[in-house]
Amino acid sequence: MRRARLTVAYDGSGFHGLAETTGPDGEPVRTVMGDLRTAIETVVRHPVEPIGAGRTDAGVHAWGQVVSLDLADDTDLEGLRRRLDRLCGPEIAVRDIRWADTPDFHARFSAHWRHYRYDVLEGPSPVPQLAWSTWHVRGPLDLWAMQLACDPLIGEHDFSSFCRRPKVAEGEPPVSLVRRVLMADWREVSSDFAGPGRRLLRFEIRATAFCHQMVRSIVGTLVEVGAGDIRAGDVRSILLRRDRQAAGRVAPPHGLTLWDVGY
Amino acid sequence: MRRARLTVAYDGSGFHGLAETTGPDGEPVRTVMGDLRTAIETVVRHPVEPIGAGRTDAGVHAWGQVVSLDLADDTDLEGLRRRLDRLCGPEIAVRDIRWADTPDFHARFSAHWRHYRYDVLEGPSPVPQLAWSTWHVRGPLDLWAMQLACDPLIGEHDFSSFCRRPKVAEGEPPVSLVRRVLMADWREVSSDFAGPGRRLLRFEIRATAFCHQMVRSIVGTLVEVGAGDIRAGDVRSILLRRDRQAAGRVAPPHGLTLWDVGY
Repeated sequence: MRRARLTVAYDGSGFHGLAETTGPDGEPVRTVMGDLRTAIETVVRHPVEPIGAGRTDAGVHAWGQVVSLDLADDTDLEGLRRRLDRLCGPEIAVRDIRWADTPDFHARFSAHWRHYRYDVLEGPSPVPQLAWSTWHVRGPLDLWAMQLACDPLIGEHDFSSFCRRPKVAEGEPPVSLVRRVLMADWREVSSDFAGPGRRLLRFEIRATAFCHQMVRSIVGTLVEVGAGDIRAGDVRSILLRRDRQAAGRVAPPHGLTLWDVGY
Repeated sequence: MRRARLTVAYDGSGFHGLAETTGPDGEPVRTVMGDLRTAIETVVRHPVEPIGAGRTDAGVHAWGQVVSLDLADDTDLEGLRRRLDRLCGPEIAVRDIRWADTPDFHARFSAHWRHYRYDVLEGPSPVPQLAWSTWHVRGPLDLWAMQLACDPLIGEHDFSSFCRRPKVAEGEPPVSLVRRVLMADWREVSSDFAGPGRRLLRFEIRATAFCHQMVRSIVGTLVEVGAGDIRAGDVRSILLRRDRQAAGRVAPPHGLTLWDVGY
């Protein structure tokens, strides 16, 4: 067996997230990794244990998700890629497949950073063409205030205010929510569907790692800054309070894309 | 009553086209105009007869579809627009609503031209993010040959080779399929999802009017030119044969968008 590395894109709309899981009734639900694993096993005819670089919630998309897994040494990687496109496409596409440089390559633990994008459509009415991939906010939003509010997030901080705290068994030590943000910024991006009173605003954030719902919590808070409901200068104190109640609402999942992972 | 004019965008994925129609069992099916008419009647509380500028088939999208209809003189147009966004969004959005300049404005008969876009993704694997709005073609495609093959289409011609011939009752005269194409061109457009070996190619065509499946038949033929299966120099003779068998296959509906209508 030999360690392989896949770069995977997906439209998360129809999936209950990346990780294989079960519904409230214990029945398996449709997940990206479930579909991908089943398809890989159909082709290679041996069990596989794929590992993703970053968990994505239900409805969240990915362009550069990275998956590691072990395959038989004689696997025809390009042939496998083509068959996976047919079995899983067009909702899931394997953009690249190659043998890992080292046998201990691990999609999750070897990653140095994850990069997410979040798209917001600002305007009086929704745009059907962007509905599946952007959060429609009536606005108007103060882009400059939203940019300013990114600054206190950069660096190493306890992001408890912006994360869903994981459940810990009694007697276990609490999980650290300290993360290091390498960059965070908003900008206006061009779009065929922009026009008078309608802008596409993109948030980009790169961190060594993220905790659960961190990007969506940050986006929700920064959009409230843009709307004037929270002052840009208050973001630092929200962060320092380490209290989830201090932050704004959580932005919806469909505007979010795991864009890239660095190794 | 007063004539109003709406500019309507929609994601056609979930609809059996624009025009209200019934399924094979005679039951009504979900159409853009059916949803829109029901929503308008819910708000204005009188029957309306909306007319669209250009019919779009099942799965075809629109950005600038124009709809005309009569509304009570005291209708609050902006209030109606906002309520329609809530009732029909995000799949259908009314981008603009205003009173027509003249009482005899007719979305279909007053139109001087219709402008369609068709997007093709050329590359070895599909892109989930573009799957609903582009036709994935493995390629490679010769863009220059596709551009060259547009030239014979421009001007007034009988487009029988590129149209589904409408059914005519016995004894009735045949319907003319002569149309005037004002512009037709292919170009590569920028995309976040383009990359090595993967291009987004856009066909734009403007004509006084189109016959049924004309854009998709032309795109299917021009993509065969790009793939080297038809020579660019043969498009003129395909046009002159006035025979649907002479043209290439019909491109799938989901790459097509009614972009704009001119009056």
